[in-house]
Amino acid sequence: MALKSFIEVGPDSHFPIQNLPFGIFKPEPTSPPRPGVAIGDYVLDLSTISVSGLFDGPFLSGSDCFLQPNLNKFLALGRPAWKEARATLQNLLSADEAKLRDNPSLREKSLVPMSKVEMLLPIAIGDYTDFFSSMHHARNCGIMFRGPENAINPNWFQLPIAYHGRSSSIVVSGTDIIRPRGQGHPSGNSPPYFGPSRKLDFELEMAAVVGPGNELGKPVDVNEAGDHIFGLVLMNDWSARDIQAWEYVPLGPFLGKSFGTTLSPWIVTLDALEPFACDAPKQDPQPLPYLAEKISKNYDISLEVQIKPAGQEDSCVVTRSNFNHLYWTVTQQLAHHTINGCNLRPGDLLGSGTISGPVGLQSC
Amino acid sequence: MALKSFIEVGPDSHFPIQNLPFGIFKPEPTSPPRPGVAIGDYVLDLSTISVSGLFDGPFLSGSDCFLQPNLNKFLALGRPAWKEARATLQNLLSADEAKLRDNPSLREKSLVPMSKVEMLLPIAIGDYTDFFSSMHHARNCGIMFRGPENAINPNWFQLPIAYHGRSSSIVVSGTDIIRPRGQGHPSGNSPPYFGPSRKLDFELEMAAVVGPGNELGKPVDVNEAGDHIFGLVLMNDWSARDIQAWEYVPLGPFLGKSFGTTLSPWIVTLDALEPFACDAPKQDPQPLPYLAEKISKNYDISLEVQIKPAGQEDSCVVTRSNFNHLYWTVTQQLAHHTINGCNLRPGDLLGSGTISGPVGLQSC
Repeated sequence: MALKSFIEVGPDSHFPIQNLPFGIFKPEPTSPPRPGVAIGDYVLDLSTISVSGLFDGPFLSGSDCFLQPNLNKFLALGRPAWKEARATLQNLLSADEAKLRDNPSLREKSLVPMSKVEMLLPIAIGDYTDFFSSMHHARNCGIMFRGPENAINPNWFQLPIAYHGRSSSIVVSGTDIIRPRGQGHPSGNSPPYFGPSRKLDFELEMAAVVGPGNELGKPVDVNEAGDHIFGLVLMNDWSARDIQAWEYVPLGPFLGKSFGTTLSPWIVTLDALEPFACDAPKQDPQPLPYLAEKISKNYDISLEVQIKPAGQEDSCVVTRSNFNHLYWTVTQQLAHHTINGCNLRPGDLLGSGTISGPVGLQSC
Repeated sequence: MALKSFIEVGPDSHFPIQNLPFGIFKPEPTSPPRPGVAIGDYVLDLSTISVSGLFDGPFLSGSDCFLQPNLNKFLALGRPAWKEARATLQNLLSADEAKLRDNPSLREKSLVPMSKVEMLLPIAIGDYTDFFSSMHHARNCGIMFRGPENAINPNWFQLPIAYHGRSSSIVVSGTDIIRPRGQGHPSGNSPPYFGPSRKLDFELEMAAVVGPGNELGKPVDVNEAGDHIFGLVLMNDWSARDIQAWEYVPLGPFLGKSFGTTLSPWIVTLDALEPFACDAPKQDPQPLPYLAEKISKNYDISLEVQIKPAGQEDSCVVTRSNFNHLYWTVTQQLAHHTINGCNLRPGDLLGSGTISGPVGLQSC
């Protein structure tokens, strides 16, 4: 029988006891930020659970990782600690366990209605990298910037193309994005124009949250890369296409992207996603040995974008996709990122690139 | 008469009382990192000076910014505090001032021979951006990657081209750089090869250290951008040209750069560089209004690279250049970086791009 929580969780909730995503929240506007997990319509305050001595396993007992304003210290502990935290919390929240269920004072202190909390960015992001790993997106983008003949460059099939993104302007979902100003270029020999972007766009992505990472000069083996990925967030890589089109040759996207990137507040762990693992697409040509995985996994995650235009009452769906459309897996991305010796640190973010499916966009 | 210190400073020293660059050091291998300034053959320990109550001006009195393991908190205070620190230290170190000169115990505690200290990275770098602002370098690089016909793209003359770099792999001068491995591509339809880079290169750059920075969505005016630049460091933007050439289309440099970037330990302040200010090159076409400066300044800083090949006794000079060759000024770079609303934070780093002069490289 499926594991159940003593907390009522509706059948359509994203937050059953099987999920337990991690985030950072404030129970009151004036309280300090602290880690939590989502369960039904509640957030479980991990600082309270930690202070109550309920993280009593070998990796977390005595640790102050849940007394921090971000998850970085927890991420640095690695998968054994992550698994221990998940097991401890699933046990504590289960219908059969009395420790929290039958302790009204602890329930009162540790379970905060989700409607009352303020969610913050869950991690302090040292470096943010954005990949370009959906073939459909690579083709769509390539046609937009370079025409159908040169849409996908030959290197794309040999390595997970990526660029360094801007960390400072990453914000949590719900934060207003201010329309960027910048240079655009009409065509031919005309001079550039300056003003608010005329081609603001969204990009539906997911991003991997890294921990514990590697030392400078010591690449991560592709078959061990999974141990360095704590979980996934949703990401909107806002893009100003006119600014991007004019600036990006030869060094890549810069101001067309760096005005804002939105993350979901909850990190869904790879452990929670394991039941949704599926085979990654077959790669042709075969990747070089450092990118060849013994087991090549994607995850079956339905994705959807809705837009609610100003002045309209209803939102409408403009795209549907699935994380399993990624050509390069997150573990290949991570191994490739470190093959030159580059070091990843706890809290680093690896964007997947826009996850386009084979079916095109609809318009609102 | 020129200001003189009571500390003996040789005529060829880079560290007279007029300079006073800021850095982070450890007096002993086991001591915690702390801020210092260089004076002659000594490092003045600013934590000791601070604890002794000698920073007694309105901006620094009572601040713990010099009790930190990096300069970020000091950078966040802005130019009035930077000027006050410089004035306080120039006074304290001057031949005419008794406070430190005639206090043997304080001298003993606060002046550490430079030969004994370990220098560390002076800042915690949130985001690192690398510009591409030397026309000679843009042309040289463009010919290398795209041939003489397409060497410089038209956007180059309209905006300071840049890309986001990797913060995690920035190291202080003296740190070993490990030769990166990665994919290269011979030519035509051949498959890529994998192995240690065959085309490891250096890039002679300087980089601006940012403070205090701006809020997301609030661009910095180009005429106020100087107040957000604390000072300059030397930078070696190590580059693996074979990796870069294969990976960089269409998103720019990635693993060809992110295996290591070397910074000098000392940040020379803009205030110390003021006597070396000179006119920036005339820009044609005229920049758009948001990049048009009332006063457009460069700095006359002689730059030189020496290489000492393995097994040889002597180093030889392979390039000589000058910071004043930059086409786009650091203040234009900073204003451009924020025009889309992107926020800069204290400790952010803006690389100039390789500063090539009109004369080509010599070989060793």
